[in-house]
Amino acid sequence: MKPTSVVTVFLTHSGKVMLARRSAHVGTYKGAWAGVSGYIERLPLEQAIVEIREETGLSESDIELRGIGIPVVVEDTALNAKWMVHPFLFEVTDPARVQADWEAEEIRWVEPAELQSLPTVPGLDRALSSVWPPFGDSDFWTRLRAVATDTTNGATTLALTALNALIDFRHRCPSPEFERAIKALAACRPSMGVFPHLAARLLLGDTSAEALMLELKNAVSESARHAAEAIAGYHSILTISYSSAVKEALIMRAATEAPLSVIVAESRPGLEGFTLAKELAAAGINVTLITDAEIGLFVEDSDCILVGCDAVTEDDMIQNKAGTSLAALAAWSAGIACLAVTQTHKITPPGFPLAIEEQDPKAIGQVVGVKCRNLVFDRTPISDFDAVYTESGALDSDRLTAIRSLLGAAKLST
Amino acid sequence: MKPTSVVTVFLTHSGKVMLARRSAHVGTYKGAWAGVSGYIERLPLEQAIVEIREETGLSESDIELRGIGIPVVVEDTALNAKWMVHPFLFEVTDPARVQADWEAEEIRWVEPAELQSLPTVPGLDRALSSVWPPFGDSDFWTRLRAVATDTTNGATTLALTALNALIDFRHRCPSPEFERAIKALAACRPSMGVFPHLAARLLLGDTSAEALMLELKNAVSESARHAAEAIAGYHSILTISYSSAVKEALIMRAATEAPLSVIVAESRPGLEGFTLAKELAAAGINVTLITDAEIGLFVEDSDCILVGCDAVTEDDMIQNKAGTSLAALAAWSAGIACLAVTQTHKITPPGFPLAIEEQDPKAIGQVVGVKCRNLVFDRTPISDFDAVYTESGALDSDRLTAIRSLLGAAKLST
Repeated sequence: MKPTSVVTVFLTHSGKVMLARRSAHVGTYKGAWAGVSGYIERLPLEQAIVEIREETGLSESDIELRGIGIPVVVEDTALNAKWMVHPFLFEVTDPARVQADWEAEEIRWVEPAELQSLPTVPGLDRALSSVWPPFGDSDFWTRLRAVATDTTNGATTLALTALNALIDFRHRCPSPEFERAIKALAACRPSMGVFPHLAARLLLGDTSAEALMLELKNAVSESARHAAEAIAGYHSILTISYSSAVKEALIMRAATEAPLSVIVAESRPGLEGFTLAKELAAAGINVTLITDAEIGLFVEDSDCILVGCDAVTEDDMIQNKAGTSLAALAAWSAGIACLAVTQTHKITPPGFPLAIEEQDPKAIGQVVGVKCRNLVFDRTPISDFDAVYTESGALDSDRLTAIRSLLGAAKLST
Repeated sequence: MKPTSVVTVFLTHSGKVMLARRSAHVGTYKGAWAGVSGYIERLPLEQAIVEIREETGLSESDIELRGIGIPVVVEDTALNAKWMVHPFLFEVTDPARVQADWEAEEIRWVEPAELQSLPTVPGLDRALSSVWPPFGDSDFWTRLRAVATDTTNGATTLALTALNALIDFRHRCPSPEFERAIKALAACRPSMGVFPHLAARLLLGDTSAEALMLELKNAVSESARHAAEAIAGYHSILTISYSSAVKEALIMRAATEAPLSVIVAESRPGLEGFTLAKELAAAGINVTLITDAEIGLFVEDSDCILVGCDAVTEDDMIQNKAGTSLAALAAWSAGIACLAVTQTHKITPPGFPLAIEEQDPKAIGQVVGVKCRNLVFDRTPISDFDAVYTESGALDSDRLTAIRSLLGAAKLST
């Protein structure tokens, strides 16, 4: 059963945590104590803020982020339900401003330890423990918040930003808090394998955030070099969305004598493909821009597809921008090569709960009575690719196993 | 070899036709006499108007449409090229306003018969004969022009509009001109099989335009009824774009006791899926709207895909909104049923040159140095569908052969 993604937000003030008793009007867990919670229909942190506004009337100026927790998977056999709970902690400036809505019958500020003696929704204590106690450093959280809600930059850029925030934070905090900051970094973007990967590497203690930044930057160029060699004989290459490594590989390939045409699918709703098309054209490459729906038409004139990759999941899937799985199917159907380029840093540590992020559905549009869904990534089996290039060449199962085994030794969960 | 689509526009005044001698600066056929011409990057009639503006400086108020010709396929073995020429005829109000651009070395107004004695681009006489002599009735052409440039309505609605224009025209013109008007109707939308189909039926003389209008309207409802029966056992149905028959089928299906969820892919750039989603929601159906790229994600939660069909081509393809071929692949990959609904009126007469229309690339967007492509339809083999429902039930090869054989007796080409 696929878990349903929800956020659980704990509001805190003077060491106490706010709980709400669910009213008789809600769909599930009537009468149970819970945090502020809701189904995830956009990025988890954005959803948390939406729920706070709806359920307490607090605005963004009334709250400050103090914790992002590793997602907690909760099974409820009675309801035949499975939840992936994304926990957050916010400091409330003035608890008197809280105005509970119809979902809450009663609100109460409690000591964290009191949770044990209250009838709560399942897994509430585990969710709280992943964000409690609060860190108290607003600069780190402000920067991590920007990463957690960004909808324009790629995984590598965001990872570098987060590592920078972590480096500054380390200089000003005791070791146990730093370890929790690393775990928060692991959880801040549930679709992107690079975050838990980097966190695991840091927890293993054999490298520093500074070294990882350098390593990651080099890995993009090296993976692009391997991909560029692989596409040396191809003249018409189709891609989707925006990937730094794909862009570098195409520019390297274009620098050879052989002519090159690139077809870029725009990637609604963010239209990252427009940016890639523009940058490739500026580099002198012959570029055609198409809608995502036209991929089926244009693979027929292409030699291969080459896509990026945001995560190599534990179940051997390439997680990348939505539309990638269709492009891979189209490549298969047209009998052309299907290639991906990534870095080993996108390999997810075993056991870490990766998810497919949803961004704000309003980005697609609004129609009365219609629910819009904006799932940003999809999954394609690694075996559907002829090759997945990394900084050390084509990925093989031995290397994948070795890296997962290394990462598995890190204690990412709380 | 796939033919390259071009328009050839003949301008006429006082019984003469304007030809232009191609300059030394053009890519092909330097020094040869030609009509105003250009590659098709949008709907053929729109492209014709763009070329007139660029090559003669005439604006839309200086010209009046007087003919749409059946496309002429021209092979040029010397150039190793194959052209699909879409011919048009426009009356010019004031020939003195023509200002030839760099593409023409010289322009000349000639009697149509003179074409034979001039060194022209290949096939120019055939292109002219399909639109010569001009009809001279502006009301019919005004209405056909609206059909030829429409980017919002479906094939059935447009076909009914064109039949209405034809009915009014018939009352005021001699028989040979009416026959040519029917052929113009056949050619006005090169992607939509319904136009040559209806034209063929009219040329066969066993039915009237009035009877065809009624038949077509009934066929939509009947085909929807067959599709609704086929999806009786399905609870989550994915579709793309807008199809009247799909909409009717879903509403009929929703009227049963069993719950129904419909997932609609938006269909960039026209976003016809938004309209369908809105209308289904208004009919009380539980609707989810997704991007075209999310089809790969949502087939996994669906029981079947059900799509419309704009043409059943001579080579056994279902031509429908771009994205349909990817949806069919996704359905296959997820192991769910793949269904289409159409009317036998979309079956194309054998030998008629169908094309994939391109609409204005600006509808996708504009990026400096990047060519946008807006191909509106794609093709999926009939064999990739579990069933294609028509007004007389699931289409089988016997019925397909019988209809094609009937239509083949009509003399559609000039």
